[in-house]
Order: sequence, then structure tokens, then C-alpha cells
Amino acid sequence: MRTIDWREEPGGGVLDGAVVIVDQTALPDEVRHLTITDVDGLVDAVRRLAVRGAPALGAAGALGVLLALRQARDEGWGDDEVAKAVDRLRHARPTAVNLAWGVDRVAARQGEGAPAVRAEARAVLEEDVVANQAMGERGADLLDELCGAGAGPAGLRLHTHCNAGALACVEFGTALGVVRAVQARGRLGRVYADETRPLLQGARLTAWELDRMGVDYRVVVDGAGPSLIARGLVDAVVVGADRVAANGDVANKIGTYPLALAAARAGVPFVVAAPESTVDPATPDGDAIHIEDRGDDEVVSFAGRRVAPAGARAVNPAFDITPADLVTALVTEARVVRPQAGDRPA
Amino acid sequence: MRTIDWREEPGGGVLDGAVVIVDQTALPDEVRHLTITDVDGLVDAVRRLAVRGAPALGAAGALGVLLALRQARDEGWGDDEVAKAVDRLRHARPTAVNLAWGVDRVAARQGEGAPAVRAEARAVLEEDVVANQAMGERGADLLDELCGAGAGPAGLRLHTHCNAGALACVEFGTALGVVRAVQARGRLGRVYADETRPLLQGARLTAWELDRMGVDYRVVVDGAGPSLIARGLVDAVVVGADRVAANGDVANKIGTYPLALAAARAGVPFVVAAPESTVDPATPDGDAIHIEDRGDDEVVSFAGRRVAPAGARAVNPAFDITPADLVTALVTEARVVRPQAGDRPA
Repeated sequence: MRTIDWREEPGGGVLDGAVVIVDQTALPDEVRHLTITDVDGLVDAVRRLAVRGAPALGAAGALGVLLALRQARDEGWGDDEVAKAVDRLRHARPTAVNLAWGVDRVAARQGEGAPAVRAEARAVLEEDVVANQAMGERGADLLDELCGAGAGPAGLRLHTHCNAGALACVEFGTALGVVRAVQARGRLGRVYADETRPLLQGARLTAWELDRMGVDYRVVVDGAGPSLIARGLVDAVVVGADRVAANGDVANKIGTYPLALAAARAGVPFVVAAPESTVDPATPDGDAIHIEDRGDDEVVSFAGRRVAPAGARAVNPAFDITPADLVTALVTEARVVRPQAGDRPA
Repeated sequence: MRTIDWREEPGGGVLDGAVVIVDQTALPDEVRHLTITDVDGLVDAVRRLAVRGAPALGAAGALGVLLALRQARDEGWGDDEVAKAVDRLRHARPTAVNLAWGVDRVAARQGEGAPAVRAEARAVLEEDVVANQAMGERGADLLDELCGAGAGPAGLRLHTHCNAGALACVEFGTALGVVRAVQARGRLGRVYADETRPLLQGARLTAWELDRMGVDYRVVVDGAGPSLIARGLVDAVVVGADRVAANGDVANKIGTYPLALAAARAGVPFVVAAPESTVDPATPDGDAIHIEDRGDDEVVSFAGRRVAPAGARAVNPAFDITPADLVTALVTEARVVRPQAGDRPA
């Protein structure tokens, strides 16, 4: 099962297809697929996080260009309307660089005709799968190196935040891809998964993936992660990223930074697993990253029920910045970068 | 309105009364009072957090001894049954030292008869109110000293966690008592209140108090606090405590430690406001503090609805330890101690 894919219509032409996604707002209760045939439907799915996670957003950006071309054919759109639709998608969410990267990479092939565009979009998806598997192996090697002597006979105890799993990618996962590779080597002990308020991607999505993987895992509230690390219960923190700046500063889901602070104090490795497409050479450092604020409702309500007093207001940044000096290593499909040691990813 | 009080029965004897508490499980939707006339009813209220907060638990411990004596009179209990009931209350929750402190202080007067016991229990409550007011003034003085030049003309921007307000005490509050004193001096800008998962004491209780105080406040998810501090939005962190060890290590609601880590990195003062009764000379350091784990349900469910996959397990520590070297100052009714500078509270 892929989190996001292009489904062709049997007997159809090059552009006859739809984007099919696993609706992540329905998990863990239900595995529901959404079939999307127009750009604004995809923009809506991105905005309400039916599809989320930096690599999956890259795939959405790529496939969205195909949808725009299909609409151009079916609805008589001119180049201007295609460009506007692609631009709406490109800006549907501001922090993850992968969305714009996926759009731009595929849109650049427009002049070569529909088959070239479709091939490029498909390549984005296939490369993501291959990249995640390479990242997983490289990350497992790195953890062997960083924690080899430290991890007990019961295996590595890893801590993760939000969902950087198959559900954040096309398949496999980035941080959870590393967990999969460690598990495949028989080296996995336990995974602690932060619930990840406000939208509970950890409790809903990561727990669902870990459950299907047969992993010994525990859900914890976000406030508990740093003290578990301080108490010696965690051998390494492994998270994904929404954007990595040229200097190694990392934007990731809100609540990542406290884990990095705690890991640094405890001398526990803090590892970021992300594809090269998440590294943005045009972003010099974390100060240059625009942090999306998603408004009051997600915070003052919980599972649809208001929890704060009527009229209560919230600040709701969706991401935080972990400074490079707290990042032990960045693992991509191609390399290991060590920002804490002064290495720059770009 | 007091959070917890002793209500006499008109025309009754010394022991004819009941413990009246504001049921904190019903806030912010409803201000509901519970009237409790037996020790096990009080133990139940403590366990399910209908009454919570270290100073309020001290008051509950004190008043519980009165309830035990009333039951002894009415139900023919012997000394052994009184001792057992008092012991059940003393151990209803393990981390806050105030509960045992309140029980022990009042139980020590049993030999002097019911009037002495009632007077001692009432003194615990009255002293708590006076102590909180003194703590508030002392804390506001301290913040003037620590942040005086730094805070902008819009006033101090304070960050707090959980509820260390009137609802955690008899009246007024510890950390929120400091906020009240800063507000009374016209020096308060904004308060950021962590929602405080799993039981949302920040979103439910602190927000309710701040709303009634007319404070400009924002609720944030627990994972967001450290990055708000890093972004320069916070002038000082002010929290309460459940137990302060002799060396200055502080046990407080889970999620406090990440704020202390972030404050230390940002050079922002981290201030703990707690009465002297929270300082436990018999606890040498944080390692000696027993951390209550409250089980899976509070984490994997919310308001009766499961949020994680069926069968998901949790780790649910109710408190964390902030090491003394991260504590800028401890403010009590009697003094300011600076653990970060090497001062020991006991």
C-alpha cells in the first residue's frame, strides 16, 4: 500500500489518471482512500493534512502538475490557468520545502509534453521509495556506530516524534525507515512515540505503523520525552525533517526541539533522517524558515471537543527549529552529515 | 471562592463539618463543588485529581485528619482504624510531599483533642493563603530584578506550565500568585500557558483563571513552549513544584523540564514558586523522588475516545525532574534560593 500514488484509468491516455491517497485524518480507525482528480482537491487535502509529511508532499506536488495538465485538456485551461493552479498547490503549505521542490521539478518538463511530465512525476515517487530504503540502511549503520556499545542486549531504544513513516512518504519512511532497518537487523528494542499535539500524528499514525510492524512501542505525551531521555531510557532520538537549512538547522514538527535539547544534555545521539530534497541550499539558516501558524482551533479543541474556556486563544506554530549544534547527524539517501561537528549540508 | 475549605455544620460540634472542594475535573465548563464527609471519599477525590496541586493537597491532608476523627466518633472507629484511614490518605499520591506533610502536621495534634486538631488543620489553610501572597510579592520583586531592563514597555511575557494557581492551592496560587502580583503592579504583558497533557490542567484550569483575571494569555501545546522561548517571546518561565529536593532539584508536572532546558539555553530566568512545605530536606536530590506513573488510559484516550490504535500502550509519568543547575531561583514565602548559583534549599 502506498500513501500516495498515481492510478491510471484503464485504456485511458497519458493524462487519464487520478491521485490516490490514504486519508490520514481517518487513521487509526479506518484505512480510507481518497481519489483526487483536480488540483484544488489536492490543495484541500494538503491543507487539512489528509496527506502530510515532507516527502509525501513532494510526491503530491509532482502529481499535482499532472492533474493540472489533465484539467487543462478537459476544461480548456490556458497556460495561465495551469500556472495559477500549480502555484496554488506550490503554496498550499509554507514550511516543507519538498512541496515546492516536487512541483518545480515536474513543471520544468511541461514543454516536453505530457509523457515527459508523467514520467518525471512517476520518477519522483519511485526515487522516494529507493531513497528511503537507502536512508534506512545508512541510518541503521550510523546507529550501530553511535550506539553500538551503549545499547543493551534487549536492543536499541529509539525515540521519535510526529510521523516520519511510510505515511509521510510514498512508502517505507524516513525516521521510521531507519527503525524498519534496525528491526530487520534484529537490533530493535523499543520505540517511544511522542503523541504530537495538536494533531496527534504520533498517537494516531506512528503508533498505527509500529503496531503493524510488530514493534514493542509506547506512546508518550510530548512533555514526557525529554525526561525519558534524561532518565536513560532512550539510546537515540530519530526524527524526520520538513526543511534542512544550508547550515544544518532543522525545521521539523513542533516539539522536536525539546528532544534535541534533552538529547544533547544526556549525551544521546539526535539523528535527523530526510531525503536530499529536504535540504534547501537557498535557506541559509533556521531564522530564514517561515513557520506556519495553524490557528486557535487545533489547540483549544481536542478530538472535536473544546477543552479551554470559551474565547481562549492559542499560538499554534506547526514547526520548530533545532539548531545545527544540537544535530548529531543528518542521514540522507546519499550521505551522513554531522552538523554538531561543524559539517554543513549545503 | 476557595479551592478547598472546611465547612462547619451550623450548631454542630467541633468535628461536625465537611471538606468542600471545587471539582477540577468539571472545569472549565462548570464550577461544581463536592462535599466530602469521609476519608475514602477524599482519597478518591485526590486520586482522580478532583483536587490537585501540591499546596491544595497539603490542605486536603490536613482536613482529612479531621474527617477521620469525625468518622471515629460517628462510626466507632478505634485508634487503629483512624491510623489506617490517615495512612490511606497520606499515600493517595506519591510525588507531592505536601500531602504527607499536611497529614503529619495535623495528626501530630491528635493527643490534644479535637479542638486542637481542628485549629491545626485550619491553620494549614490560613497559612497557605498568607504564604502565597508573600510568595507572589517576593516573586514579582525577583522578576523585576531579573528581567527589569529586559522586558519591553508592553510588560513581562511569562510562560507557565500546568496549573500552579488558586486551583492548586487554597486561594491565590504559587506561580500564578506571582503572575497576580506582577499584574497588580501593572507590569504584566502576556502569559503563555502550556496545555499540559495528558489532563490539560493548563488549557482547562490555568486558562480559566487567567480569563477571570482579565490577562492577555495564549494556550500553547506542550511541545511549543521551548521554541517560543528560543524565539525570544518569553521574558521568564514561572512554574510551581510538587517537591523540591534538598539540593534544589525540582519535581513538577511532566513537561516542566523541557522549559527549563530551553530557558537555560536562551538565558531566560527559570523561576519556581513553591511554599516551604514543598521543600523536603529528607529528599537529597531528584533521583530520590518517586515519580508516579498514571497508566495508559490518560494518554491513549481523550474524553472517553480512543485516539491511538486499539491495544496501544503508554508510559505516563506524571512528573519530571528539573536539575538544580537549570533553576534560576526558588521563591518561597520566606526567601529566594538560587540553586543555579549553587545555593541549596535544605
